[in-house]
Amino acid sequence: MKRNVLIIGAGGVAQVVAHKCAQNNDTLGDLHIASRTRAKCEAIIASVHEKSAMKVDGVFDAHAVDAMDSAAVAALIRQVGAEIVINVGTAFVNMTVLDACIETGAAYIDTAIHEDPEKICETPPWYGNYEWKKRDLCAQKGVTAILGAGFDPGVVNAFARFAIDEYMDEVTSIDIVDINAGSHGKYFATNFDPEINFREFTGTVYYWEDQQWKEKKMFESGRDWDLPVVGTQRAYQSGHDEVHSLAANYPQADVRFWMGFGEHYINVFTVLQSLGLLSEQPVKTAEGLEVVPLKVVKAVLPDPSSLAPDYTGKTCIGDLVKGRKDGKDVEVFVYNVADHAEAYAEVGSQGISYTAGVPPVAAALLIASGDWDAGTMKNVEELNPKPFFTILDRIGLPTRVEFNGTDTAWNA
Amino acid sequence: MKRNVLIIGAGGVAQVVAHKCAQNNDTLGDLHIASRTRAKCEAIIASVHEKSAMKVDGVFDAHAVDAMDSAAVAALIRQVGAEIVINVGTAFVNMTVLDACIETGAAYIDTAIHEDPEKICETPPWYGNYEWKKRDLCAQKGVTAILGAGFDPGVVNAFARFAIDEYMDEVTSIDIVDINAGSHGKYFATNFDPEINFREFTGTVYYWEDQQWKEKKMFESGRDWDLPVVGTQRAYQSGHDEVHSLAANYPQADVRFWMGFGEHYINVFTVLQSLGLLSEQPVKTAEGLEVVPLKVVKAVLPDPSSLAPDYTGKTCIGDLVKGRKDGKDVEVFVYNVADHAEAYAEVGSQGISYTAGVPPVAAALLIASGDWDAGTMKNVEELNPKPFFTILDRIGLPTRVEFNGTDTAWNA
Repeated sequence: MKRNVLIIGAGGVAQVVAHKCAQNNDTLGDLHIASRTRAKCEAIIASVHEKSAMKVDGVFDAHAVDAMDSAAVAALIRQVGAEIVINVGTAFVNMTVLDACIETGAAYIDTAIHEDPEKICETPPWYGNYEWKKRDLCAQKGVTAILGAGFDPGVVNAFARFAIDEYMDEVTSIDIVDINAGSHGKYFATNFDPEINFREFTGTVYYWEDQQWKEKKMFESGRDWDLPVVGTQRAYQSGHDEVHSLAANYPQADVRFWMGFGEHYINVFTVLQSLGLLSEQPVKTAEGLEVVPLKVVKAVLPDPSSLAPDYTGKTCIGDLVKGRKDGKDVEVFVYNVADHAEAYAEVGSQGISYTAGVPPVAAALLIASGDWDAGTMKNVEELNPKPFFTILDRIGLPTRVEFNGTDTAWNA
Repeated sequence: MKRNVLIIGAGGVAQVVAHKCAQNNDTLGDLHIASRTRAKCEAIIASVHEKSAMKVDGVFDAHAVDAMDSAAVAALIRQVGAEIVINVGTAFVNMTVLDACIETGAAYIDTAIHEDPEKICETPPWYGNYEWKKRDLCAQKGVTAILGAGFDPGVVNAFARFAIDEYMDEVTSIDIVDINAGSHGKYFATNFDPEINFREFTGTVYYWEDQQWKEKKMFESGRDWDLPVVGTQRAYQSGHDEVHSLAANYPQADVRFWMGFGEHYINVFTVLQSLGLLSEQPVKTAEGLEVVPLKVVKAVLPDPSSLAPDYTGKTCIGDLVKGRKDGKDVEVFVYNVADHAEAYAEVGSQGISYTAGVPPVAAALLIASGDWDAGTMKNVEELNPKPFFTILDRIGLPTRVEFNGTDTAWNA
């Protein structure tokens, strides 16, 4: 029974994680949150108390830490007695935080693949470049590390596992579809930090087909999806973390990721990228000032956290999984629909942060209960999805299934 | 007979002015060019010699000067013995250079309205805010100052005067149309310094109709124009210098300016402006760096002077002037067509710089000959257009007229 959670990061997703941990602090024990700027952590804790989110009286403290400094993170883990670390800081700190967990024996959870700030948009095998190199060490030391336990990657990996286990003898394809049919009312905004958000679309689109890696350009391959609740939506093939781990675990299946984009988003993105304004490489102004264009674009765009109060509409994220059962073709769509305004009312965040922040808390609860306390490194599809769905149903992200023309709860 | 020319500025238009002065140095005498960076002036002189552009052996020297420092400009005028100053520096230096001319008695020529860098996109009466305040002083001292003697403003003002004098008893409207049907082959670029170029379209569009100033938003009013050589082209009402002086000189006429834009240009412009990336106001990056977004956009866009070698196609700039003659409605279109590639072959610049840089040299030749040595301040429509057209015909920008279904040279 692991207890006491340290949250790393103080952005929009950390806000959701904090609220959800508070709502379950009877199981999770003491809560701590740390980022470079302690004031941001304090603001999140204040919002937790404002909503009276703590289920039982307990500790929720703020700390300042440089998460790039593994020794400092390890010291903080020891200081606060954390047995579970939920890392929702920037993608640059995964390895230092993971090292601190291996050092201290704390369980590690993250929601996105590690990135080296100097080597963005790397070629596959992604997880194999960083995290998986520590797998043997985790096993050897009995350290639980759950990689990519947000929504996508995370819940969608569990959706794939569930569809394959329950509905087919063999899997032939997994298509993950992520649609945000919400509206923030601004001319243009990104739902996450623009520096991270745009990167997903500036590189090559890698996908797994015919048991090999293939490449496309962003926005080269688009198709309309007819989806529950949000209706027909256009999505484009993109690179995404879970394509890699699912391709490694189900190499016989084609694995593709599809992200929904409106024409307006694509137009703005295309203009900015074509002009070089999404570049990470500094340019020099006529006055001699060195500036990274992407950082200026970030500065003029709305702060993603400012979008929450006016965000309306819903998200739909799911897996269309195809295979064969008893010699016949089968297909199943496993999905969740979340509502922006409901998320804001509950935890003060928009739906995109909500879907990313709720699942790692479910994972923490499963580590606390022992169900997912694997004592080694796992991607989500390597763990039993059913207790995960059971908790997600209870804490705000119910799983539904479309199969043979009927739409039901996953456990109906 | 004034002689000896000092060119202020060393950008794309200055390059054209330098070549055209060199081609006429038998009349113009010694030539000098000055800007903040002497090396830029030297590069222009080198390009003049490379093309063997000097008509007769003579002086062409480079100088460094801060054109915002009127006393320094006056000292340079005296030092080099210039009797004619062609100011093609930034729009910010008009008043200091004009003051230096008034101080020294040199004739002054410019091609664009003065701008205060702190007060961009001012409301009408434009020329009345700065230049015209010096009109009495010019008259009193006998100083010739020709304002806005580029193509537009400049030649188009002469087109209007010519059309009115030759074709009608009374004028009812003057519509100036500026179409660049050329292609630079880049995703996006501005033909002038982006900082100056975008400003023309970020403010309110002022125009003169029904004997009063009216206002529109940029891109609010567009129409297709069927034009000689370049065919049907869409142009949008914009603010422009000559609208003011023509409205003051022909208050009974409606005066509008139309600038041609393709859909792609408008789209890129709209995205950049909507995001706040064309702002002159500094923003602060997450790292705390203060940056003016427009300066970053300028840094990522192609240098306008780099466009010249690959620029193809033509420009068409003209005036559609309507009025009444002998009790009947008449209309006439006076225009010029210029070719980008021909301009580059002759002077190493693209057509936009060529059309802007040739006319002030024609004006200098008319001051040298005495025809336009007015001894006071004049806008171009206040001067006899015929000797201007005669010189422009000879030095590269012939004037043509469409009237009653026929298309002829202006003096046919």
